[in-house]
Amino acid sequence: MKLARHIPLIGHLRGYTRADAAGDGVAALVVTLMLIPQSLAYALLAGLPAQYGLYASILPLAVYGVLGSSRVLSVGPVAVLALMTASALQPLAAPGSPEYAGLAMLLAALVGVISLALGLLRAGFVASLLSHPVVAGFITGSSLVIILSQLKHVLGLRVADGHFPWQTAANLLAALPQTHLWTLLAAALAVTLLVLARAPLRNLLRRTGLRENTALLLSRLAPALVVGLSMLAAGLFGLDSALGLRVVGEFPAGLPGLALPALDWGAIGSLLPAALAIGLVGYVESVSVGRTLGARRGQRIDPNQELAALGAANLAGAVSGGFPVSGGFSRSVVNHDAGARTGLASLLAAGLIALVALLAARWFAFLPQAVLAATVIVAVSTLVDLRELQRLWRFRRAEGTLMALTILAVLALGVEWGVAAGVVLSLAAFLARASRPHLAVVGRVAGTEHFRNVKRHNVQTWPSLLLVRVDENLFFANAQFVEDALHAELADHPAARHLVLIASGVNGIDASGLHALGELRRGLASRGVTLHLAEVKGPVMDALSRAGFERELAPGRVFLSTHQAVLALQGDPGRESAAA
Amino acid sequence: MKLARHIPLIGHLRGYTRADAAGDGVAALVVTLMLIPQSLAYALLAGLPAQYGLYASILPLAVYGVLGSSRVLSVGPVAVLALMTASALQPLAAPGSPEYAGLAMLLAALVGVISLALGLLRAGFVASLLSHPVVAGFITGSSLVIILSQLKHVLGLRVADGHFPWQTAANLLAALPQTHLWTLLAAALAVTLLVLARAPLRNLLRRTGLRENTALLLSRLAPALVVGLSMLAAGLFGLDSALGLRVVGEFPAGLPGLALPALDWGAIGSLLPAALAIGLVGYVESVSVGRTLGARRGQRIDPNQELAALGAANLAGAVSGGFPVSGGFSRSVVNHDAGARTGLASLLAAGLIALVALLAARWFAFLPQAVLAATVIVAVSTLVDLRELQRLWRFRRAEGTLMALTILAVLALGVEWGVAAGVVLSLAAFLARASRPHLAVVGRVAGTEHFRNVKRHNVQTWPSLLLVRVDENLFFANAQFVEDALHAELADHPAARHLVLIASGVNGIDASGLHALGELRRGLASRGVTLHLAEVKGPVMDALSRAGFERELAPGRVFLSTHQAVLALQGDPGRESAAA
Repeated sequence: MKLARHIPLIGHLRGYTRADAAGDGVAALVVTLMLIPQSLAYALLAGLPAQYGLYASILPLAVYGVLGSSRVLSVGPVAVLALMTASALQPLAAPGSPEYAGLAMLLAALVGVISLALGLLRAGFVASLLSHPVVAGFITGSSLVIILSQLKHVLGLRVADGHFPWQTAANLLAALPQTHLWTLLAAALAVTLLVLARAPLRNLLRRTGLRENTALLLSRLAPALVVGLSMLAAGLFGLDSALGLRVVGEFPAGLPGLALPALDWGAIGSLLPAALAIGLVGYVESVSVGRTLGARRGQRIDPNQELAALGAANLAGAVSGGFPVSGGFSRSVVNHDAGARTGLASLLAAGLIALVALLAARWFAFLPQAVLAATVIVAVSTLVDLRELQRLWRFRRAEGTLMALTILAVLALGVEWGVAAGVVLSLAAFLARASRPHLAVVGRVAGTEHFRNVKRHNVQTWPSLLLVRVDENLFFANAQFVEDALHAELADHPAARHLVLIASGVNGIDASGLHALGELRRGLASRGVTLHLAEVKGPVMDALSRAGFERELAPGRVFLSTHQAVLALQGDPGRESAAA
Repeated sequence: MKLARHIPLIGHLRGYTRADAAGDGVAALVVTLMLIPQSLAYALLAGLPAQYGLYASILPLAVYGVLGSSRVLSVGPVAVLALMTASALQPLAAPGSPEYAGLAMLLAALVGVISLALGLLRAGFVASLLSHPVVAGFITGSSLVIILSQLKHVLGLRVADGHFPWQTAANLLAALPQTHLWTLLAAALAVTLLVLARAPLRNLLRRTGLRENTALLLSRLAPALVVGLSMLAAGLFGLDSALGLRVVGEFPAGLPGLALPALDWGAIGSLLPAALAIGLVGYVESVSVGRTLGARRGQRIDPNQELAALGAANLAGAVSGGFPVSGGFSRSVVNHDAGARTGLASLLAAGLIALVALLAARWFAFLPQAVLAATVIVAVSTLVDLRELQRLWRFRRAEGTLMALTILAVLALGVEWGVAAGVVLSLAAFLARASRPHLAVVGRVAGTEHFRNVKRHNVQTWPSLLLVRVDENLFFANAQFVEDALHAELADHPAARHLVLIASGVNGIDASGLHALGELRRGLASRGVTLHLAEVKGPVMDALSRAGFERELAPGRVFLSTHQAVLALQGDPGRESAAA
């Protein structure tokens, strides 16, 4: 039982049937076909030789299959993390060099250690730092950056990537006259085929009478077909050399060797912020995909187990020539739709990819880079979500602005600073809003025990009694504001001798809120006004009692309801003012 | 009218009476006597020549008197900011050197610009970053560091201050055998007199029939008397040279020249984090003192005007040989108790200090450093508040831990990193708590329309109906947790066909919360469960409508009350499950 909690695959395999095995087998095959071109492309995007994409798809995939709490999440190289990896490593080493590959493994190790540590500390909540608008803006912004990074392959240009996206764009613009037309044509053809392979092909297949699910699967396999055809055209007919198309080129066949990454403390120090950002982004993407797919079958995922499993997957990549991995959206959806039932699908897929790395590596030597770039562009272009920007803007200006600023930050400053800026802006926006809670002066609706806002309703009030409802938790972000606002209300009600704070909207109170209440009581007392509380919720009352605030409040009282407060206080003239 | 809003003194002087003038005059005299030794001591603590303490007490004091929204706050050098100034400048220049003094003015200018900008942007809420436990821990920790920094003067040792407090302590320990006994005796005598001048002297004076307030004032002036006597003893009888006591030494008489600080961009870059920390800490200290004193007389302070006034005061210091200033606790309390009515008291005090700087500077040459150190130690020792640590610990373990960690961070890492660590820990603790809100599955108390927690009450439930109350706002920190928790509850109630989310405790919802609700609805729908909402508050409903969530929810509904939801749904078997 205990082992099954830490190794979810054991639990998932209970009552494993032949049908489950068939589902896992088909899914493994489909995912492998789809993964291979993607993995190669993302390795190149990360600045690594293509074969590292295969390496990163073997051990990490298998480890997650055993340890992951999601049955269908497919872990491996993903576009955003590849981009973040490139951005972290490029200042430290030359892309493609052995030092660069060593640093990529070190980065994966750091991501693994950070994730594992957060998982063991059950600190999955740190992912809440990435609010929805920040994640949406980050994904859209980095997808645009990825598309930008692929344009040189589409145009057949040899230009250096700038440190910031706008530098890359400037380099591209400057080199535009040297565009290689055949490359551009090949890329355009590939993009057209890939776009047609989506909804149009799916609809066509469905109209021929294929089942919905089969049509979907076939259309999902179309990219592999396009890649395969382009390899055939280049390999068999020598189209690449005839037209001057650049190809991926030969890479060594075989499995990655197992080796610990070199522990260079200087490099660890400079990679740490990037590792933190990659760990967070990878975790958030992975968990949200896992949660969405799990919900479809009523399966739960355990956020802390996910952190641990992703950590272990990254560590597995770090010792086997990988780079940072995560649960990818498109690969997981394919795995799910192809019928995967358990992590065995991932284990099988890892085995198939290992076979490809051993036996079929040299076929990929003929793969045109323009075609690979086209698959990347078509894949990530679905992640550019400007409708979400519009929706957020309509929902609340501040949140739309937050998403827009995160996109701009990613485009202007690059992925790491972009995500950092998003987190900081997110917290700032939250504090700004939480620091100005809604306060309502209330009065009694005549003939009832209901109390409503005096500004909106025709209600009964008493000159010596000020009733104020606070619609927010009292905590450090708003404690001073509430104290100031209550003093201001009192200045507008000079005859008031009792201030009743109605806490029906207060779910919690922290030490700053308690401190402000104490200051408020003292300030009111020196002006001859008594503070009372009403409608205090259980957990808040517990906290106040622990701090001895009930005693401190005397002669002020805690009333069960506002009605009882009014009954007790309306005839009471209050104490004499202690002010001069 | 408009001018009076930006220059509060104009409003404060309306209907100014002879009695007001008398109060302001006496307060100015008392504050001057008290300020002078303090100012000299804090300049030395900041690593500056003693006269800079006087300079920083002239223009900034006058500017705040005109622009401050508090009538009684007294602005000038304060202990904590002096310590932070020293810690920011020591890595950049040699204490006491002209470069060091130039950097101090630059630092004051940065603090001024930052405060002014935040004030004009009405961004006073950033101060909410400093929660009560962090401020309390920071004040206690830095007071301990200040006492540590004064020990070398008490012991008559010439040791260098370390970069971190523990290094200073190590240096002191190593030099302990060289303790100068006469210096130690003089310091011990001064400390004894200063401690006796507090409660014991006050009680004695009160027993002789003096009025409470007069006794308080006289006991507050005692430090000035001790300092004066020590100067007399040293100056008239040459005690300093006879006993080998170190004295402050002669400094040039005269007013500070007006000059803009040199704009060194490199220095600005390295001082910026410190300026931000100093600006925040100074603002928080200042506003909390102003608020406390204002509440005693029913006078309000305007947080954004305070930021602007403190900014202007710091800029005034930056052009007149000052260093960062703020509203000090002890000086403001003295000003208040001595009868100050308006900012004129500060203007008068500034004039008196200018006179002292012009005419009396050379008297201070005879002031023994041991006596000055004793006044500082006795003054800040009241700020070491370990009882607050105990109170917070009892209130909630997490908040006590937060204060303790902030104290430790200040002692181990110094003031700047200490306050930064406090802010980060504060946010982390908040997110950790907010990320796990209280959820209750509820049922109906038989025969009523009340719904209570099934775990605590004997209530009526329905197999096809799951009623869950969420006692927290739905926002980025907890959106995913709530989604996960509701899925988990549903797994425990497999017969449920309707999930009613009772939102009576939800004061607000952000885009992340909305996104989670959408995901939840989709996840439930694919399992044949319909999501409904009940008891949604007005502002939350407005937000949901703006986002079109009501339409998205269909066939789920929004019920006014849980009771209505039960009436409508209890007989409904729900849709067929869409899951396989």
